[in-house]
Amino acid sequence: MKNFITEDFLLTNDFAKTLYHNYAKDLPIIDYHCHLSPQDIAANRPFENITKVWLEGDHYKWRAMRTLGISEKYITGNGSDQEKFEQWAYAVPYTLRNPLYHWTHLELKRYFGVDKLLTPDTATEIYKAANEQLANSSYHTRGLLTSMKVEVVCTTDDPADSLAYHQKIKNDKFKTTILPTFRPDKSFAVENTTAYIAYLEKLSVASGVTINSFDSLLAALKNRVDFFHAQGCKLSDHGLEQLYYPENKHAYNAEGLFARILKKETLDKHEVHFFKYSVLIELGRMYHAKGWTQQYHLGALRNTNERMLRELGPDTGFDSIGDFSQSVALSKFLNELDSTNQLAKTILYNLNPADNEVMGTMIGNFNDGSTKGKIQFGSAWWFLDQKDGMEKQINTLSNLGLLSCFIGMLTDSRSFLSYPRHEYFRRILCNLIGKDVTAGELPHDEKWLGKIVSDICYHNAKAYFNF
Amino acid sequence: MKNFITEDFLLTNDFAKTLYHNYAKDLPIIDYHCHLSPQDIAANRPFENITKVWLEGDHYKWRAMRTLGISEKYITGNGSDQEKFEQWAYAVPYTLRNPLYHWTHLELKRYFGVDKLLTPDTATEIYKAANEQLANSSYHTRGLLTSMKVEVVCTTDDPADSLAYHQKIKNDKFKTTILPTFRPDKSFAVENTTAYIAYLEKLSVASGVTINSFDSLLAALKNRVDFFHAQGCKLSDHGLEQLYYPENKHAYNAEGLFARILKKETLDKHEVHFFKYSVLIELGRMYHAKGWTQQYHLGALRNTNERMLRELGPDTGFDSIGDFSQSVALSKFLNELDSTNQLAKTILYNLNPADNEVMGTMIGNFNDGSTKGKIQFGSAWWFLDQKDGMEKQINTLSNLGLLSCFIGMLTDSRSFLSYPRHEYFRRILCNLIGKDVTAGELPHDEKWLGKIVSDICYHNAKAYFNF
Amino acid sequence: MKNFITEDFLLTNDFAKTLYHNYAKDLPIIDYHCHLSPQDIAANRPFENITKVWLEGDHYKWRAMRTLGISEKYITGNGSDQEKFEQWAYAVPYTLRNPLYHWTHLELKRYFGVDKLLTPDTATEIYKAANEQLANSSYHTRGLLTSMKVEVVCTTDDPADSLAYHQKIKNDKFKTTILPTFRPDKSFAVENTTAYIAYLEKLSVASGVTINSFDSLLAALKNRVDFFHAQGCKLSDHGLEQLYYPENKHAYNAEGLFARILKKETLDKHEVHFFKYSVLIELGRMYHAKGWTQQYHLGALRNTNERMLRELGPDTGFDSIGDFSQSVALSKFLNELDSTNQLAKTILYNLNPADNEVMGTMIGNFNDGSTKGKIQFGSAWWFLDQKDGMEKQINTLSNLGLLSCFIGMLTDSRSFLSYPRHEYFRRILCNLIGKDVTAGELPHDEKWLGKIVSDICYHNAKAYFNF
Repeated sequence: MKNFITEDFLLTNDFAKTLYHNYAKDLPIIDYHCHLSPQDIAANRPFENITKVWLEGDHYKWRAMRTLGISEKYITGNGSDQEKFEQWAYAVPYTLRNPLYHWTHLELKRYFGVDKLLTPDTATEIYKAANEQLANSSYHTRGLLTSMKVEVVCTTDDPADSLAYHQKIKNDKFKTTILPTFRPDKSFAVENTTAYIAYLEKLSVASGVTINSFDSLLAALKNRVDFFHAQGCKLSDHGLEQLYYPENKHAYNAEGLFARILKKETLDKHEVHFFKYSVLIELGRMYHAKGWTQQYHLGALRNTNERMLRELGPDTGFDSIGDFSQSVALSKFLNELDSTNQLAKTILYNLNPADNEVMGTMIGNFNDGSTKGKIQFGSAWWFLDQKDGMEKQINTLSNLGLLSCFIGMLTDSRSFLSYPRHEYFRRILCNLIGKDVTAGELPHDEKWLGKIVSDICYHNAKAYFNF
Repeated sequence: MKNFITEDFLLTNDFAKTLYHNYAKDLPIIDYHCHLSPQDIAANRPFENITKVWLEGDHYKWRAMRTLGISEKYITGNGSDQEKFEQWAYAVPYTLRNPLYHWTHLELKRYFGVDKLLTPDTATEIYKAANEQLANSSYHTRGLLTSMKVEVVCTTDDPADSLAYHQKIKNDKFKTTILPTFRPDKSFAVENTTAYIAYLEKLSVASGVTINSFDSLLAALKNRVDFFHAQGCKLSDHGLEQLYYPENKHAYNAEGLFARILKKETLDKHEVHFFKYSVLIELGRMYHAKGWTQQYHLGALRNTNERMLRELGPDTGFDSIGDFSQSVALSKFLNELDSTNQLAKTILYNLNPADNEVMGTMIGNFNDGSTKGKIQFGSAWWFLDQKDGMEKQINTLSNLGLLSCFIGMLTDSRSFLSYPRHEYFRRILCNLIGKDVTAGELPHDEKWLGKIVSDICYHNAKAYFNF
Repeated sequence: MKNFITEDFLLTNDFAKTLYHNYAKDLPIIDYHCHLSPQDIAANRPFENITKVWLEGDHYKWRAMRTLGISEKYITGNGSDQEKFEQWAYAVPYTLRNPLYHWTHLELKRYFGVDKLLTPDTATEIYKAANEQLANSSYHTRGLLTSMKVEVVCTTDDPADSLAYHQKIKNDKFKTTILPTFRPDKSFAVENTTAYIAYLEKLSVASGVTINSFDSLLAALKNRVDFFHAQGCKLSDHGLEQLYYPENKHAYNAEGLFARILKKETLDKHEVHFFKYSVLIELGRMYHAKGWTQQYHLGALRNTNERMLRELGPDTGFDSIGDFSQSVALSKFLNELDSTNQLAKTILYNLNPADNEVMGTMIGNFNDGSTKGKIQFGSAWWFLDQKDGMEKQINTLSNLGLLSCFIGMLTDSRSFLSYPRHEYFRRILCNLIGKDVTAGELPHDEKWLGKIVSDICYHNAKAYFNF
């Protein structure tokens, strides 16, 4: 590990080191978007071994292993936990230059104090050492959050969810604030009417609203927004290929479409888009009424591999980056909400970095002076959650908007071991600013730049969400 | 300001310093595209205070202020000029890493000799000092041009414009050459037929041609091209989402569409595109006949925010970068002109840097040996007019075409204080070439590289436009 | 040439120098995709002068010359070979920062030992010296391959080709393995039915299959796949704007379309796409059955300039980068082959770098553990075949997939003097990895990183193609 992941990892200049160590490193973490399991937090789940906490559900690692030619048996199959760890250890040296390589060693070091590279030679030793530590209660889910100074976690939850686990956590007075996020993707997933109708039943039960019309669908959603709000929810989130804004929206009718959906008719592409738009625009108004922040994750091409979807289900490593049109419909959608002064605080995340400049300028169209950084260009996401991707997002935002108003990093992770991603982001941010100072592109003003860094790493998010 | 905006600002190696100081710095400026007001030049307009010359009309600054949460009162509203300046001074430290931060300090330094950072603490002092200097006649519009060695300015003018101010400037024998540019966007803006018909009346009056058919529209435009030409015009310009080339153009008829437009019928999207194409292709032929250069600014998504458009009008900071298809229609449009040998010298500007490589290779398709750099990939524009954007444009052009044939920088600005953008460009250009020499990627040949730099900064444009 | 193209050209750090000189430099070359003429290899063609071997057919150089304003006479016209060389020598100093500048001097140095820059001053001397060497039999086509340690060359061949030259080369026991590649673009080029029908006759003669139906077209292609396979072919290749996957494929019928094609009816765009899809998907199955690797070169906008196409034909420098949608149809096409377990090893090459991330993630969707690096994101291609383009491809692949599984560089060239492109690639690769080590982003592990470098430069391709 000599000269690798040192104290000054990713910090290539003295100013950056000062910024990181004096202004960024020790700040608490606000993780305003992730996919952690509320159930695991509620139960303060312990982990039997490192495979369970580190490899289970981690489709980033799975993709890498498949690429290298490792059999599915050792990925999602019936290989033993130790075999799976050993196969991952075999893969790690081949992941060089992929973010997995940095994350792996950062996570081993920060959580388990491992100071060796993970390779087939060190696999057994590290497996044993990590598992011993995991037996300690400070390595149960809550301890893992506490040890990383996580102050707030926003999970991702379906409107039909009872939020019982959130209730439990709250009742326990766990000092990390755990809040739900309203993610209603299934409420407009009308591509598959059979699955959709099944979902409506769940939503109906959760809301107590009989859903037999578009209007009653909205009423049910409104009921759940109210409920989530009462549970402390402050954000919504949506995963979409693109925002929809029908060219000729007066040609369509949401109630008519809803009636056809109930008859299990298949809608054509334009009808599906209109329906999604119709739900999303009304949801946007509800979020605004509550003072929430709405998030749009745009541009993923999901479930590309039908064979593996059948075998393993979604979110197993067969999604990728799409090249969908974004700008026109997105601007019209935001404009419609803005035109009646019902545009909530909004975070736009794009998965294709070719869209960075579209997003980096779009936010400026709807910043109206009402809130600092009201519309945000979200942190580099998923595949882009690596040094190049983060640097591009930070640079684009800097060039086209105000970096100083940025609410910064989130994990977007399913893993309790992902919190070093905040460290990673903070180092990269400090390094970029430090490089500018060193190159004479920014004045040598430690106090001001330190303030800006700590704003981006913590204070901006705290103020923006009012945590 | 220590170590910031020094003599060697942006010059990170010795070869770059030599190139800049010995070959670039002292060259006059040819600003072949901008939005300066001919009226202000004709009147040799004085400026009451720095807010008037620096903040009025500057939608770049306005967007930044809105993002930061500053009230519209202090942006375009009824705040006093001093209050507006103070609010801008408050915003400036938050614009770090945005080009505004560099431009602000470069402009204060070059025009007003200010050697301090603009902050709330220095705002009053700088406001006073700048205003005192503005009272001096050398700070009226003409003086501001002369002090920056601006040799040629090409403004942007509507075909219906009388060019009376240009006439006045010419008669005054102002030593900076001020020329009009033919920008006929309104002559094909048939999305809104009511506004279009009103415009046709203006054009009719200006040209003396009764416009009651597509043919007479072309005759009126031809009349204005002749008139502009007689006034020294050498360029046209067009702002378009994309160039249009109808897939099935034989299905449409321009005269028939024109008749429907006169009846205020609304055209569908395809008809609008066909009409625009029909006007643009004929204009292209007219430009070629005059030996002009045609410019196409492609890819802006304009007027996204209807609420603010109603309140403030266009060009107030609510435009952004679009993701429109460019390559196919653009190549067919240029090909149609080329196929009859009627393709004028052309400059293609793209707003979305994701299109850089499309543009960088498109120009090579129609360079035919007739003119050095006949088809140009235009300098980084608008949102891209910053270090990253310029570097990407220069690098793309270098990799895919010949940087040596590039006609270089323009301001594209509405402000008389924007000329340091040429200095900015020149520093960046010299730095890139110097870095290559330092890295052994170019031979250490000061004389040749100095020639190339001075060609790009001045001589290429002079020869290309025959100024 | 002092400090330019030294031993350590492009190697900016010590670790990179070690990697290049100790692990990359001396490896043989596997050129698994190029456009070299099998006839020239079979004949062991000598070259009369350097113009013949270096400028003839090189549309990269032609584009540069046209951009600079050089007359077509000295490019493809009736200028003498010496005049053409002199005009190119005039152009070279103006190509600075374009890959042509590096390639030119690398090729002159590596093949002809020229240690001077090519300029008008050195043109005569270099022309003479190179021509003298070309007279030597070691400078005939085979010698040029041998001198660069080229172990395998895969040419690009039409299905109707007899492969007689390949047979001849094989019979000669030339120690470089020369293999054909199956490139069936003409077999689905139904945009022009007249040309298509003429091609079908050739294919019919070559295959001995009467082609009067879609089924017999497939039979003829199958026959040629078998024949190519018997001649040692291991790859296919396709040049496409995009992969096609009809939205409503059940609305079309390949046999019905084929009947209309035979009647010389013109198909509409959707029918053309469906037909291409229908042929390509069946070809994909044939390739899989043979264990071949299929290549898709996606995103070129070809033959944009009709005037020059009429005068000079295709591949003369009038192609560029397109902005076609890629992700959705590509994923569906690959999925259809995968769903029946008939997806061959696949290399995806994109011409528009804005699609890099789409490709870099698409490959992960179909890597299933069966083969190391089964689906490849191909090396930077054509216009992107330069330092920036290569670095972007390598970095994207690193961030989104596994660089360690990459099969590396190919020339894609028509010229026997292009092999230093492999050196160029190897230097760039070593430099990137060396920079990471120097910056502390990779551990200082010479042995492992040396292995990875040599895998990418040679061993991965050897294993992947089973050469």
